[in-house]
Amino acid sequence: MTTHVFKVSTKLLYDLSQPGWILLNVAVNKSAAQRVVRERLTSNAAAQFREHSVPEGTTRFHGIAAPAGLLEVVYAAEVQRDVADRLDENPVEKSLIDLPPEVIPYLYPSRYCESDKLVRFAAKEFGHLLPGHERVAGICNWLHANIDYQVGITDAHTSAVDCVTLRAGVCRDFAHLGVTLCRAMGIPARYSSVYAYQLIPPDFHAIFEVWLGSDWYYYDATRLAPQHGFLRVGSGHDAADTSVATMSGSVNFVSMEIAVEKVSAERVHYAVGPVSF
Amino acid sequence: MTTHVFKVSTKLLYDLSQPGWILLNVAVNKSAAQRVVRERLTSNAAAQFREHSVPEGTTRFHGIAAPAGLLEVVYAAEVQRDVADRLDENPVEKSLIDLPPEVIPYLYPSRYCESDKLVRFAAKEFGHLLPGHERVAGICNWLHANIDYQVGITDAHTSAVDCVTLRAGVCRDFAHLGVTLCRAMGIPARYSSVYAYQLIPPDFHAIFEVWLGSDWYYYDATRLAPQHGFLRVGSGHDAADTSVATMSGSVNFVSMEIAVEKVSAERVHYAVGPVSF
Amino acid sequence: MTTHVFKVSTKLLYDLSQPGWILLNVAVNKSAAQRVVRERLTSNAAAQFREHSVPEGTTRFHGIAAPAGLLEVVYAAEVQRDVADRLDENPVEKSLIDLPPEVIPYLYPSRYCESDKLVRFAAKEFGHLLPGHERVAGICNWLHANIDYQVGITDAHTSAVDCVTLRAGVCRDFAHLGVTLCRAMGIPARYSSVYAYQLIPPDFHAIFEVWLGSDWYYYDATRLAPQHGFLRVGSGHDAADTSVATMSGSVNFVSMEIAVEKVSAERVHYAVGPVSF
Amino acid sequence: MTTHVFKVSTKLLYDLSQPGWILLNVAVNKSAAQRVVRERLTSNAAAQFREHSVPEGTTRFHGIAAPAGLLEVVYAAEVQRDVADRLDENPVEKSLIDLPPEVIPYLYPSRYCESDKLVRFAAKEFGHLLPGHERVAGICNWLHANIDYQVGITDAHTSAVDCVTLRAGVCRDFAHLGVTLCRAMGIPARYSSVYAYQLIPPDFHAIFEVWLGSDWYYYDATRLAPQHGFLRVGSGHDAADTSVATMSGSVNFVSMEIAVEKVSAERVHYAVGPVSF
Repeated sequence: MTTHVFKVSTKLLYDLSQPGWILLNVAVNKSAAQRVVRERLTSNAAAQFREHSVPEGTTRFHGIAAPAGLLEVVYAAEVQRDVADRLDENPVEKSLIDLPPEVIPYLYPSRYCESDKLVRFAAKEFGHLLPGHERVAGICNWLHANIDYQVGITDAHTSAVDCVTLRAGVCRDFAHLGVTLCRAMGIPARYSSVYAYQLIPPDFHAIFEVWLGSDWYYYDATRLAPQHGFLRVGSGHDAADTSVATMSGSVNFVSMEIAVEKVSAERVHYAVGPVSF
Repeated sequence: MTTHVFKVSTKLLYDLSQPGWILLNVAVNKSAAQRVVRERLTSNAAAQFREHSVPEGTTRFHGIAAPAGLLEVVYAAEVQRDVADRLDENPVEKSLIDLPPEVIPYLYPSRYCESDKLVRFAAKEFGHLLPGHERVAGICNWLHANIDYQVGITDAHTSAVDCVTLRAGVCRDFAHLGVTLCRAMGIPARYSSVYAYQLIPPDFHAIFEVWLGSDWYYYDATRLAPQHGFLRVGSGHDAADTSVATMSGSVNFVSMEIAVEKVSAERVHYAVGPVSF
Repeated sequence: MTTHVFKVSTKLLYDLSQPGWILLNVAVNKSAAQRVVRERLTSNAAAQFREHSVPEGTTRFHGIAAPAGLLEVVYAAEVQRDVADRLDENPVEKSLIDLPPEVIPYLYPSRYCESDKLVRFAAKEFGHLLPGHERVAGICNWLHANIDYQVGITDAHTSAVDCVTLRAGVCRDFAHLGVTLCRAMGIPARYSSVYAYQLIPPDFHAIFEVWLGSDWYYYDATRLAPQHGFLRVGSGHDAADTSVATMSGSVNFVSMEIAVEKVSAERVHYAVGPVSF
Repeated sequence: MTTHVFKVSTKLLYDLSQPGWILLNVAVNKSAAQRVVRERLTSNAAAQFREHSVPEGTTRFHGIAAPAGLLEVVYAAEVQRDVADRLDENPVEKSLIDLPPEVIPYLYPSRYCESDKLVRFAAKEFGHLLPGHERVAGICNWLHANIDYQVGITDAHTSAVDCVTLRAGVCRDFAHLGVTLCRAMGIPARYSSVYAYQLIPPDFHAIFEVWLGSDWYYYDATRLAPQHGFLRVGSGHDAADTSVATMSGSVNFVSMEIAVEKVSAERVHYAVGPVSF
């Protein structure tokens, strides 16, 4: 196992026509393999903060009540991230009855992942592959070969079914399609937003996680950044559950700046393969 | 408060070409106001059962591993259901920052409730109403007046956005639209499947629940059955989370029979209004 | 060239709650290669008939004004159909500026053929094929290999974009997808409804026509009936232009029976290839 | 009757990576009430032009074969436009059987006007209005009251069904919805692109035409420009048939400038009402 240490930061600027509320989703998620050494969330204004996590423990929200005017919020953290040097198993798909209850909701279609509409498509394209990691890797390879990574074709309303015909999209769309094709094959899958070291330009990145064997394994069909540098922010059914901010009507988004910096040595794993958080 | 006692039962028939798995979602949910006095889940075959609940505690799943052949599963329960005689408050909408964390996921769009696509529509139709129960009642009234209850127009892929233009649907579609219009106005809302006393013909019924004040209140824009006779089976983002059964490929659905019987006196509340489970 | 002689008939039954109007589209289209030897259109009631053709001359409509009650309409015709024994050219795609004006509308997307949404998909799947007949044959082969012919999955609202993800459909869907993929590659294409000899069960069949060289060539990716036995009824942008009947509100469809009989010798051509009406 | 004289011009700039083809649709349509006094179509390059009209005579296309490099095309025309001072009839809807054949195709759904999906919606909203001009005026009033004119919400793929839930759009979307709601009520309707005097900023405008009595009447639910200043360029099923340019792959659009100038006195008619070209 190698432990990497990263510093991440997000600077968000909002303009409030009246006092308003923002629910932020930018803090690094805490887990055994992803330890927040230190972090702070500050603002320029007399804003009130309140932290809470959704029951699954996969997402930390920070509610902000802010006065009218310009609001600058800065989140910064130092995070230790363990990455296994080698996962020598080929994790398998579990039968319906052997799934733990917290995994069951990720079998079902969601806003941007209409897996009910792609059952036949997935069976035709991926039904011949070996169940487990090999099938998911086949889905990633198909995505990389058939979907163009291209900014400006898709938007916040684009779903996996839209993207599979458009044949273009960004990381969000790749992750949605990955999730959808797995669910369409009966494999639990969820969407995660992450800080990603060496992603150019710096931004939140989207990947997907698949329940194989007895753990979530993550996959990134865009192949845009090294896997050991992913720091999970939030996981959910799809991008609807992990948006950076939910705002009340008086709040307008102005700008966002993200930085991810490495502060320790590392061994790089670019390959698509079974790696868990 | 009045306590009603109901007996419910579901008989399901499946045909398995090979041994297979079914994840059933037909058991009555347990809560302080809805007490399962006795229940049983049986089958005609040498099937194995396993029960688990999703983390939110709103849905009980029963996993079944069954041999090839015809599988008959019977669920039966006796349930005590408390209904408040009078809810004299007019529950209000809470601001983003005052929502408890377990409610936050129900602000976001889901598979059949694409609230992101109906924000402007909802604001135009319901923006002038008073926040809270009055606004949700306005949504129910609009649904009752503008959507025809009609079997055969919609199917398992129909979403709220489809239905709002089709202007017809069944209880599932009414509930999806109710959920969607609430979320589009910033009000947390979820979908529930229920046993419904006096629903004709007997079937699972779908209603929606809205987070007002500090509780979930349920609404049924179809007005097809009395509210005191709803026994919740499961709640979730939408019908995707609460389907009766999730099956592996070798399992074919044959038939379903449902019965709901009252075994105690009652006072009937037909009106659309704030009533919680 | 071989000339085949066919007898076709359609018996339609409608129920009118009040006097009403029907616009029928069941008569065989007249062209140099498809000659109507004799035909009649009769009804059981005191109905008035009126025939007219759309400006392109590709569709004959029969307007019917009928009294209240049951209306039985029978169309019957004997048709001579010339089929070239061999089309030895490999017809090519023409550039935009060399298309005759009447062909230009068939470059554009239509109700069931949203070619604007499949441009990238078509380029990725068929861009490497030689322009002309080879590319269209490639599209037919792809359809035959990737879309299941299956009744009951699609309905009258299903479009090509729906079908390309569903991966299943009937002749109407195969024809819509063929039209759409051609238009997405810049090739004019239209949809035709035909009587089809040896189609089982007897029904109207749908095929598509492609403008190559200087003529319309027809293709049938379903491969369900021999090409020499197609008798064109109507052509248009898609099924919207060629529906069997357009009815006023008081008219209800009851049943339809179709028969196609061969009254002369023939040589059979099953292969997908360049054959024009 | 008042005759107005207008000068219109369009300057288009394209960049061709290789020699390519463009099919332009910018020339003013010629009719008895809209007379082209003089016009010219010129370019900076050694381009070849070819003019043709679609069979319906409603659209003039100019095919251009151009060399690689920057291509500037200028169209300019002087047009006499007759406007009736008063249309004193209240034109009525005709029954199916009384429609002339060239009007029939405009009963059916098209790419951006999926009238088959809004039949129930239209019946509920407009079924109680008097047939004919009153119903169409009711549709225009509904559009003006319920759809926000807003740039940037919709795009080239947006259809009437999308827009009816989005509740926002531009002239193209207003016209598509007008067409769709008419067709959904059984009234033939088509889409027209026009030069519009006093439209700010200058651009092609989109309106819709409805077959009432025995003529096409035009309607503009945006109310953005006076009706006497509309000069029709092309009519068709929807925007798919009347796009400014259809281009081969090597052609990139750079910019467009439009000007409309009045060169004679006028009487202004702003009201929504029956006025034909």
